[in-house]
Amino acid sequence: MKFSIDRRYLQDRLSTAARAVSPFSPLPALSGILIQVKDDCIIFTGSDSNIAIQTTIVPGELNQLRIDSTGSACVESKYLLDIVRKLDCDTVELELMDYTLVRLTTDNGTFNINSSSADEYPVVDFTRPKDHFMLTPEDFRQIVSSTAFACSDKESKPVLSGVNFHASGNELHCSGTDTYRLARKTLELNENQSFNMTISARTLNEVMKSLSDSDPIDIYTDKRKVQFVFGKTIIQSRLLDGAFPPVERIIPTEFSSRLVVDTQELSRAIDRTNFMKNANVHLIKLDCSEEGVRIKVRAAEIGNSDEKLKDAKWEGEPMNVTLNGSYVLDALKALKGERTEFSFSGQLKPIRLMDVDNSSTLMVVVPVRSFD
Amino acid sequence: MKFSIDRRYLQDRLSTAARAVSPFSPLPALSGILIQVKDDCIIFTGSDSNIAIQTTIVPGELNQLRIDSTGSACVESKYLLDIVRKLDCDTVELELMDYTLVRLTTDNGTFNINSSSADEYPVVDFTRPKDHFMLTPEDFRQIVSSTAFACSDKESKPVLSGVNFHASGNELHCSGTDTYRLARKTLELNENQSFNMTISARTLNEVMKSLSDSDPIDIYTDKRKVQFVFGKTIIQSRLLDGAFPPVERIIPTEFSSRLVVDTQELSRAIDRTNFMKNANVHLIKLDCSEEGVRIKVRAAEIGNSDEKLKDAKWEGEPMNVTLNGSYVLDALKALKGERTEFSFSGQLKPIRLMDVDNSSTLMVVVPVRSFD
Repeated sequence: MKFSIDRRYLQDRLSTAARAVSPFSPLPALSGILIQVKDDCIIFTGSDSNIAIQTTIVPGELNQLRIDSTGSACVESKYLLDIVRKLDCDTVELELMDYTLVRLTTDNGTFNINSSSADEYPVVDFTRPKDHFMLTPEDFRQIVSSTAFACSDKESKPVLSGVNFHASGNELHCSGTDTYRLARKTLELNENQSFNMTISARTLNEVMKSLSDSDPIDIYTDKRKVQFVFGKTIIQSRLLDGAFPPVERIIPTEFSSRLVVDTQELSRAIDRTNFMKNANVHLIKLDCSEEGVRIKVRAAEIGNSDEKLKDAKWEGEPMNVTLNGSYVLDALKALKGERTEFSFSGQLKPIRLMDVDNSSTLMVVVPVRSFD
Repeated sequence: MKFSIDRRYLQDRLSTAARAVSPFSPLPALSGILIQVKDDCIIFTGSDSNIAIQTTIVPGELNQLRIDSTGSACVESKYLLDIVRKLDCDTVELELMDYTLVRLTTDNGTFNINSSSADEYPVVDFTRPKDHFMLTPEDFRQIVSSTAFACSDKESKPVLSGVNFHASGNELHCSGTDTYRLARKTLELNENQSFNMTISARTLNEVMKSLSDSDPIDIYTDKRKVQFVFGKTIIQSRLLDGAFPPVERIIPTEFSSRLVVDTQELSRAIDRTNFMKNANVHLIKLDCSEEGVRIKVRAAEIGNSDEKLKDAKWEGEPMNVTLNGSYVLDALKALKGERTEFSFSGQLKPIRLMDVDNSSTLMVVVPVRSFD
C-alpha cells in the first residue's frame, strides 16, 4: 500500500471518517481508521458500530492523489489525524511498511505510526437500502437545528434519543421530543413518500457537520438502517428501534389566549436569571394580562426577580404559567424568528410556540405546576 | 446602602474584585464580594485568604456613580456578576433591603439577591507595607509571561509555586523553577534596591489580568506580604515562605557547543509528535552535528519519527541529547524570539536557551537520560 496526496485534502477526508470513531468503542480495532487503497481510488472507513462513515477519493486535480501500490491497513485515528494536521508540507506520502507500520513521508522527515492489519477491522456492510428520497443541504440543516436539541439524552427510552422522520404524501414531519417538550419541522418533498423512521440525533449531527453546501443528500432506507450519501461520502446508521410516541396528539390546536414577544428580549430576560435555580431547574413564571407581561423568578436560597417585558402583547384572560426556562430558551433559539407567538389552551395545558413569520416549525412546551 | 452606577463600569470593577474569590474557599463568607458604601466612594473587596483584591470607585464622569446612602453588604460573587453582566441597561441601582437582600433595579425590573451582613466578612488588613519599588505594566507583563509558567504546580514545596524577585543594586532578577527547568528574566530598576521575596504565580497572573495599560504599578512589600497598587485597585498576597533555591548555581556559564534554530520551525516540529509519549512524557532526541540537526522521537506503543530541521546551525562536536518536549516548547514560547540559541556545556549538563536578539531572558532545561 503506497500513495501520495495533498495534505489538506487528506486532513479533510480523514476528519470526516474520524467523526464516526469513538474513543470509548468496545472493540479496539474501531479506534482506528481503515485505509483501503484500490487501483483507482482510496477509501477511508470509520465506525463505532452504531454509525459508520466511508469516504472515497478518486485521483483529481484538487487532491493530487497518486496511487503507487494497493493494499490496506488500520491506523489509530487520533494519531493519524494529529500528525496530518500538524505537518508543514503540501504533499504527503503514506506507505505500509512490514505490515506493522504506516509511514508518512514529507520533504524533511518520516513519521511511523504502528498499524494493525485490515483483517482485524470488523466488516461493515455498506449495501445500499432500496427506498430513496432527497433533501437539500439547507433543508437538512434546518431539520437538524430545529429538532435534534429536543431529543432525550437519557438511555431509558432509546427511541426518544432520535428524530422521527414521518412522511405521508409529499409532507415530511420531523419530530424530536423528550416527553417534556416537542420540536417539529414540516416540509414538502418533491414526490409522494411513505415512511416512518427514527434516526439518532448523534447521526444527524455528524451528517450535518460533514455536509458540503453543493451536493444534495441522497437518503436510502429500509426497515433497519439509513444511509446518507453526498459527494463521495456515505454515512450510515441503524435506525432506532421502538415506536415513536404519537406526538400529533399533544400538539394543541384550539387556543384561548395568545402571547407575542420580541424573541431577543425574552431570551435575554430568561437567560439573565438563569442562576436562580430550584433543585437545578430554572423555573420562570410568566404573569400575563392585557396590562403587560412580567417574568418572575424565585429561588429560595438565591433570590428573586420581577421584570416587565417592554415589547409583548397578550390577548386573552389574565394567566399565570410556570415554565422550565431552559426549555423556552432552547425553543426560542431553534425557532430563530424575530417575534415568537405562544398559544395557550388553558392552565397547565401544553403551549405551542411558533415564529410569527414562519409556520413550518413548531415547538410544544409543557408547563410545570407553579412553585407558589 | 444605596447607589446607582454605570452598568459596564460596575461589571468591570466587580470582575476585578471577583478574581480573588475562589469557589473552593473554606470560609463561606469568602465566596461573596464585600460592598462598602462610604460618603465619597464605594469599595469592593474579594479574597480567598491568600489573595485579596480591593477596588475603590469615586464618583466621576465615566462611572456616573451617585451615592444615596452609606452602608455595607456581602453578596455571592458569581450571582452578582452574572446578573450585572446580563442586564440590558446603562445604569443600575443597588440597594440593601431589610439587611438580607441586595436589590438591583433597572428600568424594567428588580432583581433581589440574598446577601449576608458585612460583619460576617473576615477583616482583611490592607495596611501598606513600607518598602516600595515601581514597575511599568509592560515590564510586569514580561516578567510574568516569561517566568510564571516554569513554577511548580506541586504542593510539596510551596516556595517553588512562586516567582522569586531578587534585587541587588539596580538589577532585578525574576526566577521561576520546578527544579527540572528554570526561567529567568533580568531587568534594570530606576533606583538601587535590596530584597529577596517569592510571590505566588497565581497572584502574579491575577495582577496581570487586572492591569490597565496606563497606570504604573506601585509595589509595596515587607517580610510578610506584597501589595500591588495601580489606579484605584490594591491586590495583596502573602509572600511564600521558605528559601528559594540558589538558582544562579545551575545556570551554565561555559559552553562547548551551540545550536541556533528558527524558533517557529523547532516549535512546530516538537508539537507535531506530541502524541508519541512514553509514560505520558514527550521525549525528543536532538541529534546534532555540523551535517545537520535531526529530531527523533520513539514511543514503543505508538510509533517513531525522524525529521531534519531546515534552518538550524550546530557548532561543536556531534552530540545526542534527550529533552522533555513540553519543557522545550514552553521555553521557546516564553522567549518569543525569532531565533533561539541553545548553549551546551556537555552531555547531560543543563542547557541554556536564549533569544538570539535579547539577552534579558534565559531558560535552563535539564536533559534526561536517553531512552536508547
